[in-house]
Amino acid sequence: MRYERDNIKSMQGYVSGEQPEDRDFIKLNTNENPYPPAPEIQQVIADFDARALALYPPARADRFRDLAASLHKIRRDNIIATRGGDELLRLLITTFVNPGEAIGMTDPTYSLYPVLAQIQDCPTVTVPLEKDWTLPDDFAAQVNRAKCKLTFLVNPHAPSGKLLAVDRLADIASELNSVLLVDEAYVDFVEDRYDSIPLILEQDNIVILRTLSKGYSLAGLRFGYGIGAEDLITPMLEKTRDSYNLDLISQLLAEAAITSRDFAMENCRKIMIQRDVLRNALLQLGLDCEATQTNFLLATVPAGFACSARDLYEALKAAGILVRYFSEPKLINRVRISIGLPEENRKLVDSIKSLQGADRK
Amino acid sequence: MRYERDNIKSMQGYVSGEQPEDRDFIKLNTNENPYPPAPEIQQVIADFDARALALYPPARADRFRDLAASLHKIRRDNIIATRGGDELLRLLITTFVNPGEAIGMTDPTYSLYPVLAQIQDCPTVTVPLEKDWTLPDDFAAQVNRAKCKLTFLVNPHAPSGKLLAVDRLADIASELNSVLLVDEAYVDFVEDRYDSIPLILEQDNIVILRTLSKGYSLAGLRFGYGIGAEDLITPMLEKTRDSYNLDLISQLLAEAAITSRDFAMENCRKIMIQRDVLRNALLQLGLDCEATQTNFLLATVPAGFACSARDLYEALKAAGILVRYFSEPKLINRVRISIGLPEENRKLVDSIKSLQGADRK
Repeated sequence: MRYERDNIKSMQGYVSGEQPEDRDFIKLNTNENPYPPAPEIQQVIADFDARALALYPPARADRFRDLAASLHKIRRDNIIATRGGDELLRLLITTFVNPGEAIGMTDPTYSLYPVLAQIQDCPTVTVPLEKDWTLPDDFAAQVNRAKCKLTFLVNPHAPSGKLLAVDRLADIASELNSVLLVDEAYVDFVEDRYDSIPLILEQDNIVILRTLSKGYSLAGLRFGYGIGAEDLITPMLEKTRDSYNLDLISQLLAEAAITSRDFAMENCRKIMIQRDVLRNALLQLGLDCEATQTNFLLATVPAGFACSARDLYEALKAAGILVRYFSEPKLINRVRISIGLPEENRKLVDSIKSLQGADRK
Repeated sequence: MRYERDNIKSMQGYVSGEQPEDRDFIKLNTNENPYPPAPEIQQVIADFDARALALYPPARADRFRDLAASLHKIRRDNIIATRGGDELLRLLITTFVNPGEAIGMTDPTYSLYPVLAQIQDCPTVTVPLEKDWTLPDDFAAQVNRAKCKLTFLVNPHAPSGKLLAVDRLADIASELNSVLLVDEAYVDFVEDRYDSIPLILEQDNIVILRTLSKGYSLAGLRFGYGIGAEDLITPMLEKTRDSYNLDLISQLLAEAAITSRDFAMENCRKIMIQRDVLRNALLQLGLDCEATQTNFLLATVPAGFACSARDLYEALKAAGILVRYFSEPKLINRVRISIGLPEENRKLVDSIKSLQGADRK
């Protein structure tokens, strides 16, 4: 007998980029940071006394919340610490969206959003992006018309890497009748002046997602946080969150990470420089590739290139380099490439070159 | 404006036992283990290279699952690793219970269950335990009549510490029309021969919860697992679980814990001995206190005792000793006391003695 709910039975789970056990691959497929985390992280681990694990951890990660509040010049009550950004996304749905109510998002977007909507048995309302990946002018109106209770915007956008300005976010939030989640997983790689956090003081319906996975080189730690008006944060913190959602070691490491933020931001700057270098190299190879504000590039394989995007992905994999290929219509002729170390990026470029050479023979 | 769902707005969050920042309290209130975790835990921490945190962790904790499968002589597909037992409880509801459908449990029981039910907007069907804390004979029939889609049984029971035999569990599971969760958080402190795991091979509707929090002295780690038929485990593993629910360090430490299980079980035996010592001392003080199969005792404060249960809790707290007091009707004249180190238990006994002395003056 199958006991699952109907919506669970009929759905597919989230499919992440490949995570091979064989770590010899050059991994440019899941937007991990190629640089190590700050030395303070190793130090906290070295100093950690395992006996402390016998007790339950601080339930709300208040020390981390205080540090994040101080960094962003807001109050502790505006912050919830979560098991990666993923937990925050789930909590937003659990807290603010009844089953059957709609959740808004763009097409394309981070492919986890529709999966989380299905788990809650919520229909997904997708607003197609324009050809240049910008939002249509009537985005908020469309979402309101569909009676969405929650809207997910990833900014900078994945997988295009485009940034929406703070003013535009403010306009959208004030036009929306419901909660807006701004997923800033990649914000540490933004070149422009960009600070959306003051919006939470003006708008009662914005939650901003941050994660230590990308900018802080801590994807393996599973630590993120949400920033928003206290009325949005409190029910997630006090009611819908698993009561001890963050283990003790993760909390201590997250505190160390945010305290040593300068180290991480220096690595982000290196990645931003490499982003330009790699983009220029890909353009020279004949791929289309717009500038991004993230730690990845979205390369379009033009008609007449040596191979299709799918074949490029496969050939690179065979050469020991993983990039991300999405089979959905808007992305079918593209590959998403995470920025690696300089030598990794060079190997990628060399591999594509040799593919082209093989094609010409 | 308040954006919460109605069920979230109207509910109260889970209230755990006090977790004072001031660690000078003797903590006998949240059933933590007073002994340290195995030395292998500290060793894994000492050997850990923080650079590994830059990459995402293994998504399904397969190495841990293999070790747990080997320990319990079942297959990896029968196991899901979770962020403490709490995550498993939540996933069971998310996966198997539609909002509006009922969830069965006993009264009293672990006070988190009704909170999780409310989050999913599910009514709770509570079956009162008999006076001696045993299940009524028609438990399964009552739950079936109420059309429960999921039933939570904690075994050994909290807060009474009573154990239900495997045969009785088998009968209940086969009579139930729906999923049965057997929460074995305290199983490592069971004296009798007890092994419910073979039931998962006979019954397609049982999931057994295990945690490293109690027996393994790892409450701070937040690591548990579920054991059940593959058809029950797979949808939680592949669909409803947050995609990377367990960070890398937790996975490595959980692997070390289960590998060094003998060390933890030796500590559990010490606790079981202390449990008898403490129980006898409490009886001598005039408290009622039945034998338990857990790392806690439930002491009843009889009429004519020096003070009420609530006053006992308050007086012990003032003396620097935390025990757990529940204000619900069936527990109003009782306190739950976690078994501490021998000297902690002695201090508790001495404190109660001096309360009695003060009362007599």
